[in-house]
Amino acid sequence: MNHEDWVRQELRELSRSLGFRYVPIEEIENRLARVRPGMRNQGIEALLVVQKMNFYYLSGTAQDGLLFVPLEGRPLLMIRRELERAKVESPMKDIVALKSNREIPSLIQTHFGRLPKSIGLELDILPVRDYFKFQELLPGTNFVDASSVLRETRKIKSPFETDLMRAAGEIGRKVYLEARKVLKEGITEIEFGGLLEAVAKKHGHEGLLRVRSLNYEAYTWHVLSGICGGIVSQSDSPMGGLGLSPAFPVGASLKVMRAHEPILVDFGTCYHGYQADETRMFSIGELGQKFIDAYHACREIHDAVLEETRPGADCEAIFLKTLQLAEKLGYKNSYLGPPGLQTRFIAHGIGLELNELPFIAQGQSYPLEKGMTFAVEPKMVFPGEGSVGIENTVVVTQDGYEILTPVEQDIIQV
Amino acid sequence: MNHEDWVRQELRELSRSLGFRYVPIEEIENRLARVRPGMRNQGIEALLVVQKMNFYYLSGTAQDGLLFVPLEGRPLLMIRRELERAKVESPMKDIVALKSNREIPSLIQTHFGRLPKSIGLELDILPVRDYFKFQELLPGTNFVDASSVLRETRKIKSPFETDLMRAAGEIGRKVYLEARKVLKEGITEIEFGGLLEAVAKKHGHEGLLRVRSLNYEAYTWHVLSGICGGIVSQSDSPMGGLGLSPAFPVGASLKVMRAHEPILVDFGTCYHGYQADETRMFSIGELGQKFIDAYHACREIHDAVLEETRPGADCEAIFLKTLQLAEKLGYKNSYLGPPGLQTRFIAHGIGLELNELPFIAQGQSYPLEKGMTFAVEPKMVFPGEGSVGIENTVVVTQDGYEILTPVEQDIIQV
Repeated sequence: MNHEDWVRQELRELSRSLGFRYVPIEEIENRLARVRPGMRNQGIEALLVVQKMNFYYLSGTAQDGLLFVPLEGRPLLMIRRELERAKVESPMKDIVALKSNREIPSLIQTHFGRLPKSIGLELDILPVRDYFKFQELLPGTNFVDASSVLRETRKIKSPFETDLMRAAGEIGRKVYLEARKVLKEGITEIEFGGLLEAVAKKHGHEGLLRVRSLNYEAYTWHVLSGICGGIVSQSDSPMGGLGLSPAFPVGASLKVMRAHEPILVDFGTCYHGYQADETRMFSIGELGQKFIDAYHACREIHDAVLEETRPGADCEAIFLKTLQLAEKLGYKNSYLGPPGLQTRFIAHGIGLELNELPFIAQGQSYPLEKGMTFAVEPKMVFPGEGSVGIENTVVVTQDGYEILTPVEQDIIQV
Repeated sequence: MNHEDWVRQELRELSRSLGFRYVPIEEIENRLARVRPGMRNQGIEALLVVQKMNFYYLSGTAQDGLLFVPLEGRPLLMIRRELERAKVESPMKDIVALKSNREIPSLIQTHFGRLPKSIGLELDILPVRDYFKFQELLPGTNFVDASSVLRETRKIKSPFETDLMRAAGEIGRKVYLEARKVLKEGITEIEFGGLLEAVAKKHGHEGLLRVRSLNYEAYTWHVLSGICGGIVSQSDSPMGGLGLSPAFPVGASLKVMRAHEPILVDFGTCYHGYQADETRMFSIGELGQKFIDAYHACREIHDAVLEETRPGADCEAIFLKTLQLAEKLGYKNSYLGPPGLQTRFIAHGIGLELNELPFIAQGQSYPLEKGMTFAVEPKMVFPGEGSVGIENTVVVTQDGYEILTPVEQDIIQV
């Protein structure tokens, strides 16, 4: 049998039997309807969407290709590989083969009737070399940065998206239930982390936690015990951990975990591309009072953020309140990192990527809106000793929030 | 204790006790000496290295920052986060804090005495927005694409680098030994893959298999059983598998594995940033003769490539020979994918990234050189049925090759 026929006849049924949820056409249409006003405001006549997650968001497929979205009229999905799969995965009508980049102008011309005068590109992430190629292929075109139009559209999640994040959170719940069985003295951070990931994958976790950045990578979960929890690294995070080598100086290490150390497990799960992010504290035997107290302070700050969470609340104002609260509780010098290395956010937007809007952070003065999703993560760092923290992923509702990561919040002592 | 003091006093010892190998100064000096002739040829007066793996390669640290490499004189390492760790990790002399991008010109001026007239940037991967920022910060500078200078330098591995790849291969060996104990009927592809990754991580595998590309991602290993092995996806690979959702349409799926199916396990490991890539075949009970025969053809092609592997051999010529051999063996329509979807390479360079030079591929006519490392992977794909293949990572030696992935090559039947 040839591959094309097999895909046409069998792929959908096999995928559905294994739980695939395809993005419905109504979902795609709503997303297009929301992206277009932003395009109009910026004078963008059409988008050329390249980056995988924007491409998936607007087309429903993550095959390799390019998506042309005119301000008016139907989008055109150009697929390099694999065309027949894209036709099964995407509910779009106009899906064509893209055999070479040189075909891009003629495919657009044929579909759209002419070449647009201005095209929006994802300049926050598009490599310069690709930009030069587009300039060469479409010489009369004015290229505009469409990054923020796409980010702004994606920041509000639909019920379809929130459902998938809830499913990611459910995978996390299963992992934390299993974690208390696996944790024991003498196991290394990375072995523990690897076992938790294996549990998550068994339940459908997709492994890769996508980040929108050239250099900020997804990596093995933070499993940070004792002294390693007190180490800051290159990531914009209160602590980074030791990691496994100078090439991977973040996250879990080969350090053996011991009784009475704080063990921080910061753990993202991904289902159908959508992530849920959470942190819980573990200990083998009893934990020292200093860490218990600091953890309670984290919970107080976490609860204070959620108390303020509703449409209309200002993101920067919430962040600044947490600074005051941390100081009042006596943690000015440990909150969000050691002095001089403290991060300036208490929550990051999350969805298809780990660094979406909104940021509840310094300098981010804009209102929360219904359908926004973010991970709130107060953490206290004590260099040479360890760190503690809690994190949950929530969606903003009509009048408050819903937690998408329903795991017990007490310190998990084994 | 403050973090800076802790890092200065404790980090090196803790890291070394956990097996960290720092890049020696001689290694860095050799790399700089090899990158400079390429700079001179292109009229590049200095490099500004941004991308994490080039940055690590030339500095020894993967902290967040920017590396200035003049054609003559000492490089300057500018670190955003975390400065004290970078000082421990990198053997360089000139390491300074970079608090804001606005400081870049004055830091260069102070270190170099003036601003260079031409600067090389990694335009293959640098986002357009960052490029515009550099143009704004350094208005009189001519920016040149330095991507290929860096790729050409990195394609030859030193004994230090090959040692780390050998260690990655050793992790793989342990994983395949364990795999035969874990594999059983009824387990899903992703559960099996997750368990293998857990074994690898326990032994120091760093989880992320870095790829130099905007959209081509590292992902969960290929564990492709039966029908799923016959599915092509977006990746430039003979087969891609079903994956877990339309957002992750590659790699292992939730399909349950059954007796007598071909089970292809394509499995990368990473140690100190350096990768080894390998593929082996498994079956639960006996495998049908069709797949056994196809696997023997893969081994024959694999051995034929290694037979030709030595300094001076032409990469394209080797590839074209494998096409002839596959046809002679009766696999013209299955070799490297189904008709119309066949890939055009039989081996890819590998090191800090999964897609380095050389490519033994169509259109890649250049000689193999001593110290090059690549993964050779003949595969046969049968849509609707499955796929088979073998893969090993090798280094080119003085007069031949050495295999860095020493795992038994027979089909592993459990």
